[in-house]
Amino acid sequence: MTAHSKPIPLKLVTITDSYWSAYQKLIQDTVIPYQWEALNDRIQGAEPSHAIRNFRIAAGLEQGEFGGMVFQDSDLAKWLEAVGFSLAIRPDAKLERLADEAIALVGMAQGEDGYFNTYFTVKEPGNRWTNLQDCHELYVAGHFMEAAVAYYYGTGKRSLLDIMCRFADYIDSVFGPLPGQLRGYDGHQEIELALVKLYGATGEERYLRLSQFFIDERGQEPNFLLNEWSARGGVSHWTGRVTPKPDMAYNQAHVPVREQAAAVGHAVRAVYMYAAMADLALHTGDEPLLEACRRLWTNTVTKQMYITGGIGTTHLGEAFTFDYDLPNNSVYAETCASIGLIFFAQRMLSLEANGAYADVLERALYNNVVGSMSCDGKHFFYVNPLEVWPEASQRNPDLHHVKAERQAWFGCSCCPPNVARLLASLGEYIYTAGTDTLYTHLYIGSEAIVELAGQSVSLRQETRYPWDGEVTFTLELAEAAAFTLALRIPGWCDGAVIFVNGQPAEGVRVKKGYAYVSRTWRSGDNVSLTLPMAVKLMEANPNVRSNAGKGALQRGPLVYCLEEKDNGSRLASISISPEAVFDAKFDSELPGGGGIVLEGVGVKDGEESWRGELYRPLRREAGRIPLKAIPYSLWGNRGSGEMAVWLRLSN
Amino acid sequence: MTAHSKPIPLKLVTITDSYWSAYQKLIQDTVIPYQWEALNDRIQGAEPSHAIRNFRIAAGLEQGEFGGMVFQDSDLAKWLEAVGFSLAIRPDAKLERLADEAIALVGMAQGEDGYFNTYFTVKEPGNRWTNLQDCHELYVAGHFMEAAVAYYYGTGKRSLLDIMCRFADYIDSVFGPLPGQLRGYDGHQEIELALVKLYGATGEERYLRLSQFFIDERGQEPNFLLNEWSARGGVSHWTGRVTPKPDMAYNQAHVPVREQAAAVGHAVRAVYMYAAMADLALHTGDEPLLEACRRLWTNTVTKQMYITGGIGTTHLGEAFTFDYDLPNNSVYAETCASIGLIFFAQRMLSLEANGAYADVLERALYNNVVGSMSCDGKHFFYVNPLEVWPEASQRNPDLHHVKAERQAWFGCSCCPPNVARLLASLGEYIYTAGTDTLYTHLYIGSEAIVELAGQSVSLRQETRYPWDGEVTFTLELAEAAAFTLALRIPGWCDGAVIFVNGQPAEGVRVKKGYAYVSRTWRSGDNVSLTLPMAVKLMEANPNVRSNAGKGALQRGPLVYCLEEKDNGSRLASISISPEAVFDAKFDSELPGGGGIVLEGVGVKDGEESWRGELYRPLRREAGRIPLKAIPYSLWGNRGSGEMAVWLRLSN
Repeated sequence: MTAHSKPIPLKLVTITDSYWSAYQKLIQDTVIPYQWEALNDRIQGAEPSHAIRNFRIAAGLEQGEFGGMVFQDSDLAKWLEAVGFSLAIRPDAKLERLADEAIALVGMAQGEDGYFNTYFTVKEPGNRWTNLQDCHELYVAGHFMEAAVAYYYGTGKRSLLDIMCRFADYIDSVFGPLPGQLRGYDGHQEIELALVKLYGATGEERYLRLSQFFIDERGQEPNFLLNEWSARGGVSHWTGRVTPKPDMAYNQAHVPVREQAAAVGHAVRAVYMYAAMADLALHTGDEPLLEACRRLWTNTVTKQMYITGGIGTTHLGEAFTFDYDLPNNSVYAETCASIGLIFFAQRMLSLEANGAYADVLERALYNNVVGSMSCDGKHFFYVNPLEVWPEASQRNPDLHHVKAERQAWFGCSCCPPNVARLLASLGEYIYTAGTDTLYTHLYIGSEAIVELAGQSVSLRQETRYPWDGEVTFTLELAEAAAFTLALRIPGWCDGAVIFVNGQPAEGVRVKKGYAYVSRTWRSGDNVSLTLPMAVKLMEANPNVRSNAGKGALQRGPLVYCLEEKDNGSRLASISISPEAVFDAKFDSELPGGGGIVLEGVGVKDGEESWRGELYRPLRREAGRIPLKAIPYSLWGNRGSGEMAVWLRLSN
Repeated sequence: MTAHSKPIPLKLVTITDSYWSAYQKLIQDTVIPYQWEALNDRIQGAEPSHAIRNFRIAAGLEQGEFGGMVFQDSDLAKWLEAVGFSLAIRPDAKLERLADEAIALVGMAQGEDGYFNTYFTVKEPGNRWTNLQDCHELYVAGHFMEAAVAYYYGTGKRSLLDIMCRFADYIDSVFGPLPGQLRGYDGHQEIELALVKLYGATGEERYLRLSQFFIDERGQEPNFLLNEWSARGGVSHWTGRVTPKPDMAYNQAHVPVREQAAAVGHAVRAVYMYAAMADLALHTGDEPLLEACRRLWTNTVTKQMYITGGIGTTHLGEAFTFDYDLPNNSVYAETCASIGLIFFAQRMLSLEANGAYADVLERALYNNVVGSMSCDGKHFFYVNPLEVWPEASQRNPDLHHVKAERQAWFGCSCCPPNVARLLASLGEYIYTAGTDTLYTHLYIGSEAIVELAGQSVSLRQETRYPWDGEVTFTLELAEAAAFTLALRIPGWCDGAVIFVNGQPAEGVRVKKGYAYVSRTWRSGDNVSLTLPMAVKLMEANPNVRSNAGKGALQRGPLVYCLEEKDNGSRLASISISPEAVFDAKFDSELPGGGGIVLEGVGVKDGEESWRGELYRPLRREAGRIPLKAIPYSLWGNRGSGEMAVWLRLSN
């Protein structure tokens, strides 16, 4: 099986619209430099990262002790990956030099055999490969593989790629089915999808086979991770003490992957694995594996996903729980998990042009992922709730993981670097191209150069999405050529209209969420796509107990919410009519430079008639109040206050 | 200050009605014998209690090691207390002999100095009084003091009372303000209220003063518990490791008690302390202490109590959180905490005849406490939720503490013995008497003998409460006498009517929830009290976010709920109109032998039109369904299923 289409190389996609350019600039001008300072322990008042220092010690350039978590090296890897993407779209000699030096440092910390890992080489030499459940060894290697590929594509330099090929070859010798080899896999999936990227960059099939090995071994009996736990006396790396027998569902190693029926366990591990499974299914044509991907996709997005694209219901284990269990206030919805869901969606899209995959990608991107970042790029949410009562976050220990304001990011947490690398590589998610079809999956103002029907085509997309659904495409090409533009019609959209050169487009086929516009194109041709953005009141499947009798506002790709700042406290006392009309208005005061808010009227239960009682016979007194809803992605930027996505319906 | 009235001695109150007799018989015939077997490690398949064995080892009758928790001794104390109460109302020579032997065993384990505690004498000799924060030493002593008093009142025997006076005198020598004494108090309040009982049984003022000392020292600077923690290197008894600085609010030792403004921390510790504070305020007339009791009472019952009389919002710390934080599904509402609230309410009632105190006592007793016990007396709830989704209890780790079915009780948990001693002593809560006023606080069929206006009066109360609100009192007395019957008019009752000898009662004064019927009474006089039990739909203060837009059914003292068994699954999809009419019907099939159910009609959102989606534009389809609500106290007796107290209102 081959992909019906592939992403356009990042160098050939330039994002130009104001919405995303602002975020990309934030990544390039603020997040990447800030992260470098953090990696070098130069941020005042922050927990030191130790990342660079650990490598210097491992390289013999400094004396000292290892600092940080067992997977600390991966912070450097994610930085290098973001830098690789960033350099692809915006060359920067100074940044490149810093990265080259860091790569050289990594090379110095690498052993003759190809292995490097500062925790194990500095702190626990002799213990490599003894605790794959806890110690993230292959996870760290995987992140460096992804970084190596991104850096290679971004700069043309093979330095890190060569380092990682040596490491991958060494891993290939250690792990495998032969006597003397470890028939195992990492407790935190990551290397599986990274090896597929390494294969893509080098053409070396053994990397694909190694990825396949890890995926196929996972969950087989006898269980590798349980045996390993047993062999070390049941001792956990994290506590240094004996633990009860670990639950293999946490690592999605409870049964072989082709037998897995539902998304379970740690959400990030799960979606990283599902993405790798889809990659492998694509490359190998493995039907049972593809079937499993579809099954896991369907379960995740139709039974275990928040309307914001968040996944992972509980902070205990940062995990899925079970179908339809989607509480709004105690939710985890880790930012990294939504990023992984985007990876999974992208792989499924490469298997099949089905708008449903892109709808989820868009939902997660525009809501949970953008919502995880503050407008200044320096504060992040790890946890993304759909209902917040600040006092409860502070004073109810069940909700301590839920914050009402984003936290300053000190370089040691996984989410900001993950957001950085996603947004730096955003161009890879907008388009994919086949021989003679260009797919547009996301509406983001950009310029792309793509080869279609043997021609080099320059495509310019202009739009004010997500604020409005007018999209214009302008094409430039040397000679007329016949090819197809496949434009995604979002699932939320009714009444999309396509014009070509000012005339209604003819012969447009709509299939699985894409409108296929096939014609002979000439330079200067333009296409205008109108995606009406009606305000919609959404409801959840009635099996979702948390959302019974509630509705959520959505307009275009954006989910909306109420904040205390605009609507007063006790948001729970507010209800709206199922027939309520909300007007979309541009509000220049909105954090982030302005955008569309929704204005309407609701009803609020008052408290004036209460005289200190807690319970009384019903005599509700409610009054009409004006309501203003803002995009969920912009919540929490104006101080601490209540927030709610799902609102009570009054009927 | 003296109590305006005092409880009638337990021997003089016989409960005769079918509702409570059934529970009392369960305690006497099932729970007390079962607990004795458990204390002797004779229950098959159960975790051993070790309680009796520990005492035998401490007494030198056996060799062996200490088993169980540091407070294991208290299980025996609670059993002895329940036995004491039981013997007061139903003599039983065989049971008394078992108890006498157990008491003799305790005596053998007591040192010359008066101290006993099998954990410290067997396992950690030399370490007594070194970790009052964790090790419950005075807590254990307190429970034995309560047992001693109950046993003395129940049997006239001073054996355990003498043992405990010796222990109390020893404690009095160890703790105090003098040089060489410990200026401290226990991490788990209990001895404070126990010493007041000891004072009551012996007349020895030093026990009252020792209680006062413990209450007054608590929370003073320098903080005794923190210094103690520091002195042992910050090591916790529970983990054997160093812990972060403990939060004194957990033990209500964060500030002196007179300065405490709100109920915080571990709920059971809190209410045991508040009960002791009220006891002391009564005996000493200490106004600031009384003020603190009133303040803490008001905060607890008007801002932090569930409609079922449950208190303690979070399982983390088994604690209060903050005002109006009352989630229904993740709640803790530990059974013991409601029992402590009943103790607190009873003390406040002794300070002032205010029906509001008895209303809370009744609410907690009839709902949370009765609800904690299964109809067979062998299964209990530690945690008492107001909303249950069994699958979530199993599969969402945030809710693992919430069970959908009561657990078999294996003798090592605190709640069943606490329920046993409360229900065995229930007669003390029904009436209190002053010189010439008899207060009836609870409507429970019973016979009591009380001295009023110098006469011995026999009172018979007959009622089918809580099913119906007709109550009849019949008096027998040798000669006519003038006194007052004060009948509580429950806060939930509108339109109470009182007849005396078939005629409307004249000159009845109603004051603070009591109807005072004063006249010259003759033998054979009868009073009939009609307390109409209309079905009420209750709402919560709008600051309680969890209950926004919801109502709870109540009839008389009983809170009602919906169960899946009667109404299907997805209870959250059900809504009722604020104007809904519910009919009270007798249902003989109800667990426990039949009772009143509420039948009405509601609306349920259907799922037929859903085709596997999770979110869609609102198009709700709902249908009318019949509803049956049962008393909350009887939930969970018919297998595992959903349950909900608070129901969505459709308008």
